[in-house]
Amino acid sequence: MTRRLVIGVVAMAAVAMLAGAALAQFAKPEDAVKYRQSVMFLIGQHFTRMAAVVKGEAPYDKAAFEQNAVLVDTLYKLPLAAFLVPGSDKGSGMKPEALAEKDKLTQMHNTTEAELAKLVAAAKSGDLNAIKTQFGAAGASCGACHKAYRK
Amino acid sequence: MTRRLVIGVVAMAAVAMLAGAALAQFAKPEDAVKYRQSVMFLIGQHFTRMAAVVKGEAPYDKAAFEQNAVLVDTLYKLPLAAFLVPGSDKGSGMKPEALAEKDKLTQMHNTTEAELAKLVAAAKSGDLNAIKTQFGAAGASCGACHKAYRK
Repeated sequence: MTRRLVIGVVAMAAVAMLAGAALAQFAKPEDAVKYRQSVMFLIGQHFTRMAAVVKGEAPYDKAAFEQNAVLVDTLYKLPLAAFLVPGSDKGSGMKPEALAEKDKLTQMHNTTEAELAKLVAAAKSGDLNAIKTQFGAAGASCGACHKAYRK
Repeated sequence: MTRRLVIGVVAMAAVAMLAGAALAQFAKPEDAVKYRQSVMFLIGQHFTRMAAVVKGEAPYDKAAFEQNAVLVDTLYKLPLAAFLVPGSDKGSGMKPEALAEKDKLTQMHNTTEAELAKLVAAAKSGDLNAIKTQFGAAGASCGACHKAYRK
C-alpha cells in the first residue's frame, strides 16, 4: 500500500471506532440528537457572549472572555460521537449527508477544534486584536460545517 | 449588627448581585430555561455513565470516569445564574418556590458543587470504594434539590 492509502485506511478505521463508541454511549438516536442540541445551544450562548465583546457591544473583561473561550473549547470536544450515531439525522437539524460523509465531518470537526484551541490561546494572551482575528477564524470554521451539514 | 446578621446581609447581597448578572446574561427567560435544561441533560448523560460503573454494569476505566466527573463538575458550575432569572419557572420543570427562595436554592447549589468537587478528587485518586461512597453523596445532594424545587 502507498503511504497515502495506509493513512486513509487508518483514518477510516478511527472513524469506524468512533461510530462504534457513539452507538455504545447513547441509549437511542434521540438521546444523541438531544445531546448535540444541548451542547450546541450552550456553545451558542457562550459564543454570543464573546461575540458581543468582539463587536464592541460589551466591555472586554480578560477573565470572563477566557472563561467563555475555555468553556466553548471544552464543550466542543463532546459532541462528535453524537454526530455519528446512525439514524440521528431524523427529527434534527442535521442533513443526512453528515452521516454519509463521516470522515469529512470528522475532519471539519477537528479543524474547528484546532481553531478553538487557538482562540483559548489568544484569550489567555489578553491581546484583543489577536482575539478578534482568531474569533473570526473560529466562527468561519463553525459556519463552514453548518453550511455543509445543517438543514 | 450581630455577626450572624452581617453574614446574612452579605449573603443576600451576593444573591441579589447574582440575580442581576442572571438577568444580564439571558436575552429572555426562555433562554434561561433552555440553558438550564441543556446543562441538566448533559449532566444527566455523564452522571448516568458514571452510575453504570458504580453499579458494576460497566467496567471501571480510571481516565474515562475522571473525565466524566470533571465534566459534570464543570457543567454544574454554569446554571446557577439561569435558575435565578425572574419568570423562568414558566414552561419549565422548576417550582416557583425556587425563585422565592433564592438564598436557599443558592445554598443547596453550593453544597452540590462541594460534593462534586469531592467526587473529582475521588475519581483522581482511583480508589473505587471512595468513588462509590462519594458518588452516593453527590447523587443524594442532587436529589435533595430536585425534591425541593423540581415539579
